Amino acid sequence: MSRSVPRPGASITVETPASSANLGPGFDSVGLALGVWDRCTVTVTEEPGVRVDVEGEGAQGVPRDGSHLVVRTMHRTWQALGVPAPTGLHLSSVNTVPHGRGMGSSATAIVTGIVAAQAISGEGDSFGLFDPRFTNDLAARLEGHPDNASASIFGGATLSWSDDPEVGTTTVRLAIHEDVVAVVFAPEEQLSTAKARSVLPAHVRLADAAANSGRAALLAHALGHAPEHLVAATRDWLHQEPRRPSYAASMALVDDLRRAGLAAAISGAGPSVLALVPAERVDEARAHGPRGWRVLTPGIPDAGVRVTVETRPTD
Amino acid sequence: MSRSVPRPGASITVETPASSANLGPGFDSVGLALGVWDRCTVTVTEEPGVRVDVEGEGAQGVPRDGSHLVVRTMHRTWQALGVPAPTGLHLSSVNTVPHGRGMGSSATAIVTGIVAAQAISGEGDSFGLFDPRFTNDLAARLEGHPDNASASIFGGATLSWSDDPEVGTTTVRLAIHEDVVAVVFAPEEQLSTAKARSVLPAHVRLADAAANSGRAALLAHALGHAPEHLVAATRDWLHQEPRRPSYAASMALVDDLRRAGLAAAISGAGPSVLALVPAERVDEARAHGPRGWRVLTPGIPDAGVRVTVETRPTD
Repeated sequence: MSRSVPRPGASITVETPASSANLGPGFDSVGLALGVWDRCTVTVTEEPGVRVDVEGEGAQGVPRDGSHLVVRTMHRTWQALGVPAPTGLHLSSVNTVPHGRGMGSSATAIVTGIVAAQAISGEGDSFGLFDPRFTNDLAARLEGHPDNASASIFGGATLSWSDDPEVGTTTVRLAIHEDVVAVVFAPEEQLSTAKARSVLPAHVRLADAAANSGRAALLAHALGHAPEHLVAATRDWLHQEPRRPSYAASMALVDDLRRAGLAAAISGAGPSVLALVPAERVDEARAHGPRGWRVLTPGIPDAGVRVTVETRPTD
Repeated sequence: MSRSVPRPGASITVETPASSANLGPGFDSVGLALGVWDRCTVTVTEEPGVRVDVEGEGAQGVPRDGSHLVVRTMHRTWQALGVPAPTGLHLSSVNTVPHGRGMGSSATAIVTGIVAAQAISGEGDSFGLFDPRFTNDLAARLEGHPDNASASIFGGATLSWSDDPEVGTTTVRLAIHEDVVAVVFAPEEQLSTAKARSVLPAHVRLADAAANSGRAALLAHALGHAPEHLVAATRDWLHQEPRRPSYAASMALVDDLRRAGLAAAISGAGPSVLALVPAERVDEARAHGPRGWRVLTPGIPDAGVRVTVETRPTD
């Protein structure tokens, strides 16, 4: 795709879905897109500088200048593409992805920024377009793990890996059985990923690594072809138990759902909980939500981030 | 199924396929049936005692009395079923599964014994029949791991796990893409599973456990739906590298095949090597076989162990 310095007046809107990562035994590899969307309109302005308007989730807490995560990511993207940044930029965001809940809000912002930077610097027919593989790889590098971003980019359930830094991140879509419904339980309090990660041990028992690997294989199988095994397929040996003290109420809910025969795991690094349940047990699953928690059935979007062209640059 | 003490004259033949276990990242969980069969005819005799005739692989090394693995397993099966053992037994085996090569010969013998004991003690219409789930669970307990036996019982590619000792082992079949061909490279020398297992570390790095889990998920996906990813999907972090000194030539072959873009892993606990290659690259894969090694393309049987009734017990 051919690109040039974004021209004043050009404007696009990027919509990016939330995601649930670390899906049970799929620590740092399996992600699931959630139908909760952040929406950001980016306009190149004559007037220099950066202006950010934010409504919705996290509106109080985010910076309104060049340090805003979407803006910073756009600049890193233009750098990676070798495209000069415009001098004036206006962002108008409407966010619905809760922050600090394990629903991938930072990946959502990073994907939004990478896609926006590509889309708005496209020349001619390339205006409004982006390269999903480039987006996926850069997002994994900026986030430090691929699983949230890949789900936000490709939708559905994703599995990502990297063997060779030169090739970067590869992602495949995993099939999802039509009877699988995602239910997300989000508590009021936040938990930072950095804090959650800090309590993970450096080593695990070989037997636990083997058990976890078997369940990861089962997850890939059960999600698409054998949902009756999803409770077994979402059992994890790597990340949830060591973090139990960080999100005790969330683990109590996971235990409670699993005891009822409903597949459940911590969403991302918590504290939200993701349940994957048959359509006819959604109400029963929702009823497990503790008092004061939000319970969402956001759907699993089959496609990820999308761009709408608002105003093409004038020639 | 109703069962009784096996009656003199009753005779059945059990045929059981070999298997490849520990498939790459699927350590102790993923197995693959191989179309190399052991055949054993079991006859209840008037004359008391045990007589064993063995032809083929391992014929020189196996005992000819009650300590023969198939006979011992039959007795443990009758014990588990609460059926009295017959006083006279004749086994006639023709074995083609190589011993001590990582092709599941002990699981083949155990499955043969469990199936034979059930089949020959069946009453009336149950004569010649066996319960696959009972067989799978008892075999996993006798072997200490489920992956070889499950493939010998169910055929194809299998994934096994156990959460609850009371429920025992559960196994699902994984889809295999029609373009995937198994090539097995077997060296002349044997390696005992006990020796191979002894060099595994008790702990692994969390990052390696996570990487291995991601690849196990990819294995379940790639095997059935995306064979182009099988090289990435057969990469392992748990068992092969620590055992490299035990089977250096095998690992050299694995490395050599993988460098050529052919998915390869140690078969079971080695020293055989399993490659999963596209049909059009089978000859190229076979050409990697070191001098003096047997190279097999045995096929992956879609069904496992089977029983033929030779002589029904007379009433």
